[in-house]
Amino acid sequence: MIIILKPSATEEQIDTLKAEMTGRRLIIQEITGETTRMIGLAGDTSMLSPEMVTRHEFVERVMKVSEPYKLASRRFHPQDTVIEFPGGQKVGGGNLAVIAGPCSVESEEQIISIAKEVKLSGATFLRGGAFKPRSSPYSFQGLGLDGLNLLKIAREKTGLPIVTEIMSQEHCEVFANDVDVIQIGARNMQNFPLLREVGGLGRPVLLKRGSSSTIDEMLQAADYILAGGKSAVILCERGIRTFETATRNTLDISAVPVLKKRSHLPVVVDPSHGTGHWDLVFPMAMAAVAAGADGIMIEVHNHPEKALCDGQQSVTPFLFDRMMNRIKKLRGVMCE
Amino acid sequence: MIIILKPSATEEQIDTLKAEMTGRRLIIQEITGETTRMIGLAGDTSMLSPEMVTRHEFVERVMKVSEPYKLASRRFHPQDTVIEFPGGQKVGGGNLAVIAGPCSVESEEQIISIAKEVKLSGATFLRGGAFKPRSSPYSFQGLGLDGLNLLKIAREKTGLPIVTEIMSQEHCEVFANDVDVIQIGARNMQNFPLLREVGGLGRPVLLKRGSSSTIDEMLQAADYILAGGKSAVILCERGIRTFETATRNTLDISAVPVLKKRSHLPVVVDPSHGTGHWDLVFPMAMAAVAAGADGIMIEVHNHPEKALCDGQQSVTPFLFDRMMNRIKKLRGVMCE
Amino acid sequence: MIIILKPSATEEQIDTLKAEMTGRRLIIQEITGETTRMIGLAGDTSMLSPEMVTRHEFVERVMKVSEPYKLASRRFHPQDTVIEFPGGQKVGGGNLAVIAGPCSVESEEQIISIAKEVKLSGATFLRGGAFKPRSSPYSFQGLGLDGLNLLKIAREKTGLPIVTEIMSQEHCEVFANDVDVIQIGARNMQNFPLLREVGGLGRPVLLKRGSSSTIDEMLQAADYILAGGKSAVILCERGIRTFETATRNTLDISAVPVLKKRSHLPVVVDPSHGTGHWDLVFPMAMAAVAAGADGIMIEVHNHPEKALCDGQQSVTPFLFDRMMNRIKKLRGVMCE
Amino acid sequence: MIIILKPSATEEQIDTLKAEMTGRRLIIQEITGETTRMIGLAGDTSMLSPEMVTRHEFVERVMKVSEPYKLASRRFHPQDTVIEFPGGQKVGGGNLAVIAGPCSVESEEQIISIAKEVKLSGATFLRGGAFKPRSSPYSFQGLGLDGLNLLKIAREKTGLPIVTEIMSQEHCEVFANDVDVIQIGARNMQNFPLLREVGGLGRPVLLKRGSSSTIDEMLQAADYILAGGKSAVILCERGIRTFETATRNTLDISAVPVLKKRSHLPVVVDPSHGTGHWDLVFPMAMAAVAAGADGIMIEVHNHPEKALCDGQQSVTPFLFDRMMNRIKKLRGVMCE
Repeated sequence: MIIILKPSATEEQIDTLKAEMTGRRLIIQEITGETTRMIGLAGDTSMLSPEMVTRHEFVERVMKVSEPYKLASRRFHPQDTVIEFPGGQKVGGGNLAVIAGPCSVESEEQIISIAKEVKLSGATFLRGGAFKPRSSPYSFQGLGLDGLNLLKIAREKTGLPIVTEIMSQEHCEVFANDVDVIQIGARNMQNFPLLREVGGLGRPVLLKRGSSSTIDEMLQAADYILAGGKSAVILCERGIRTFETATRNTLDISAVPVLKKRSHLPVVVDPSHGTGHWDLVFPMAMAAVAAGADGIMIEVHNHPEKALCDGQQSVTPFLFDRMMNRIKKLRGVMCE
Repeated sequence: MIIILKPSATEEQIDTLKAEMTGRRLIIQEITGETTRMIGLAGDTSMLSPEMVTRHEFVERVMKVSEPYKLASRRFHPQDTVIEFPGGQKVGGGNLAVIAGPCSVESEEQIISIAKEVKLSGATFLRGGAFKPRSSPYSFQGLGLDGLNLLKIAREKTGLPIVTEIMSQEHCEVFANDVDVIQIGARNMQNFPLLREVGGLGRPVLLKRGSSSTIDEMLQAADYILAGGKSAVILCERGIRTFETATRNTLDISAVPVLKKRSHLPVVVDPSHGTGHWDLVFPMAMAAVAAGADGIMIEVHNHPEKALCDGQQSVTPFLFDRMMNRIKKLRGVMCE
Repeated sequence: MIIILKPSATEEQIDTLKAEMTGRRLIIQEITGETTRMIGLAGDTSMLSPEMVTRHEFVERVMKVSEPYKLASRRFHPQDTVIEFPGGQKVGGGNLAVIAGPCSVESEEQIISIAKEVKLSGATFLRGGAFKPRSSPYSFQGLGLDGLNLLKIAREKTGLPIVTEIMSQEHCEVFANDVDVIQIGARNMQNFPLLREVGGLGRPVLLKRGSSSTIDEMLQAADYILAGGKSAVILCERGIRTFETATRNTLDISAVPVLKKRSHLPVVVDPSHGTGHWDLVFPMAMAAVAAGADGIMIEVHNHPEKALCDGQQSVTPFLFDRMMNRIKKLRGVMCE
Repeated sequence: MIIILKPSATEEQIDTLKAEMTGRRLIIQEITGETTRMIGLAGDTSMLSPEMVTRHEFVERVMKVSEPYKLASRRFHPQDTVIEFPGGQKVGGGNLAVIAGPCSVESEEQIISIAKEVKLSGATFLRGGAFKPRSSPYSFQGLGLDGLNLLKIAREKTGLPIVTEIMSQEHCEVFANDVDVIQIGARNMQNFPLLREVGGLGRPVLLKRGSSSTIDEMLQAADYILAGGKSAVILCERGIRTFETATRNTLDISAVPVLKKRSHLPVVVDPSHGTGHWDLVFPMAMAAVAAGADGIMIEVHNHPEKALCDGQQSVTPFLFDRMMNRIKKLRGVMCE
């Protein structure tokens, strides 16, 4: 941590500050520029919030030097994390995860039919919402536990591990028993009690980036889960909120190489929510893979025009199949 | 709802769409421009999501005409909502609520001392965090239930109703019993299960705007609470996330008149979180009141440089007192 | 400037860097943390761009310590700049400038009638666009030099100094002769050749903040003008672009106290462009003055529904008069 | 255009509005919903600004149906625009343009050496700044006309057409004579007098997206140039300003398919400015091509650590060569 002092700071004030910092067992190193005087602090500054220091009237500014996350950082874990599933699927470390399925589970016939089709095209995981976070209380809210049971049936029929979103701590036990990858939705990326509890369940967690969360906040949220010590984390970029309205969100593809640089965790991309338009999903899925993503998450619906949720951004199994064909070829180029 | 058709739409396709809409008991009105053909729908379109319609390849775009919220809308409730408390405090309808106190409750001595001071200066409610949402798992997380008990003691000593944040459904019962105004923090504005449950508790809820939430999404979140039928809602603007880094958030003061126009609910402003710097709190509190806010929410700490949380944005009781003096005069101008 | 080194940096690499910096006559001070090693540089670092340093593979990050602007900084010019006009008007230093008039000059009758009315209500400057920057080439583009002549007639009739926007270097001479305050519009805030040339004209310049410009970039733009050595600068906050669509822009009222803290230049606020809705202008003008602005800039039109430009955000002379009445009272509170 | 009336609108008010619209030769079609009454307007509404209508107190809102641009729209020009250069280079229509070179021209030796190297690796155009827009007046501002002359020498030696930025109308004649593709920088995207003048020069124009410009505003800016009737336009996505600070801008890769859908103009992507970090350029260039871009624009410098400008985001010729190798293979996949 670097403390930048105001030109008006007196020797007395500086001495008080130095004594305070020495009291915290920090090592003080002074830097004096022509117009600016600074104090560098070495040692464990994790318990020292910048605010405490900035509060002194004679302090101009404080600059944090170290990253605000630890367990998710590549600095302390240089190798890629690779998550292995009983069925042999791997996420991370050069493997491509393909998570596909409808926005929400609507019926047994629907979920099984889609699951079979996406598997044939090359999907390695089945997604489907049972509990749906909707901006409006008047929209369809998902089938709940019934939806979860239908997902289990679809898993049995296809062998695809299931990925589905948890919205409340009260469902943690059920999800720990029944779900292969527990999804934390963008709106819950900073629901800290939920993150903590999920981190203790021992199931891989797919953590979606909040639509106004920075990359560093996302990695701090991952730290909340990892601190539980039991659950692996998959990071998911799904678009951030900007001024542009041509797309539902602005899919931040550059988050992929940035996250891969800062963290050892696998990174997948959701171009369906990231764009909000089915005809942008194919090019953006290609872009994600070309940028080095460890996986993609795609909404597929057999009758998008009748979907109870997000039909606008769902591709048909036919288009999904064409997309997968090209992505396989792209992977050939990437892995050379 | 207005459906804009692509120029390439065939009569057959349009007929199918019209039949589908008639089947939903909607009344169809066609509009034909020189280059564009549109279909207007009258009737209850609340169960018809724009996505379902946009999904048709021959549809270019859909425009929603009605507001996405109902219970919070001034359209159906023209009079200001005024919330009255047993101690006589009123929120809304031309009254000014002043909610003041520390970011987090730290000790009995601290909370009682601050509560007494802010009351003397004119505060009408005491704020203080017991459960604290922190971006980092390594930051101070609040005293929890112990903090809640200290708030109750401070209430007893001063008569000020208490406002504090709930972070998890598991604390609903405690909050319903002990807290006068239950706060939903910005990060939980779209934690829908929590909103629903809080809406049934029968306590006024202070709903903070999510840092990337639109005004309409905030009113939809209010609808979630109001749908419970038991709890009144106070809206709180606390800054949105933008590219500007000079302030912690960009306090959207214009949200005050916009919310007052669209909704009958009281609107308060939190310039402490909205700016993140104690020396901006005074001018921005003035701005909020001058723009017509029904209240302000201010972080006050007797030793900001030792605060365990957000000391940077807390004002001292002395500065708070000066601010209140000027705000009282401003209120004189506003109420003439 | 602080250089943060990667843990992998070798002694040899660090020595090379140190030699390079010594060659630039910079004084080197090393700081060694537990996990991080840093180099602090003292001396004139203005010719050293952070990019040059970051480019070294063994450098993790560079932090600039000093502000990126000089002439606009309060650090080197602690007193408020006050601009005096021949007619006695003052801008800055506790005076309130009221700049009012139509979005664009439409006819002699229109501009004179509005000028007289706003003067009666208390305006101290007349605004009106002769050259209009419009997003669409198909929109009304202003009367050009004819509009400028009409403004001069209105000035003669009322004594109000005129404020109008320059869009091209080719008009610099005319503006230097005829205009009292030369406005640089938001879209030209970083039109550097124009800024430079205007800075040599010897007329006060009203510099509008670009809709996606940070406060620091705005002050750097002011430095471009001030470097000309002849022209004073008035800063104007007029809203920034965010995700919120309820308002045309998000008026960043907190920019007022931030700019006043960082700079000695006067700060005015334009709530008309800042909100885009006439019924938000009154509350936001109040908010601006309450936050400490040195002036407001208001679009007033006698027939807003027939305005050729921005009628939506123009207030009538009647409403302007009511607003001015209340603002005068607010000023009473502010100046006590 | 659809006009949505307030519930309180009287018959008399509506009749006045209808008469006004009939007077503008617009055809009126009424739509009556259960709670909302609307008026649809057919005919040429291009001269009718929404503001004029919204200004009526009884009008709630106006919705524009048609796109705000014409000449750039694919609606009126379904085929891709393909721009051919004398040397045989093509931009648009399935060809991949590779524009490479240093941020700014620094010396004859530098520009010739880089030009030769990028040509060998597959670049089809040479970029290099002679006039540089810099946020700070204290940064290196480019070699000006001398830089232009060096670019001409490099063109002679390599045969690569040159792309360089114009900053002021006063250089139009020189650029028309000497430059193959005239670049309009992001900061000048809405410098309308410059756009108009450049549109008459008869040289292809590379138009960069403003960092806070919507896709529609970019296409409106293209309309300004195309209205000149002489110059072709190449659109360039180069990142938008968001809250994320991990990258210099957020490169909006989804703008590629959106622009290709809405417009017939070629679309290139600049991952150097879009990310601001040299090690993100490779993955993001891949992403751009995979998303369907017609070209990429890459900053290449032989000694990035000594570059006078943007060294941080420049790749070395060696890395550029590796990148080009992989991009050629990716093109194979894309063109199958």
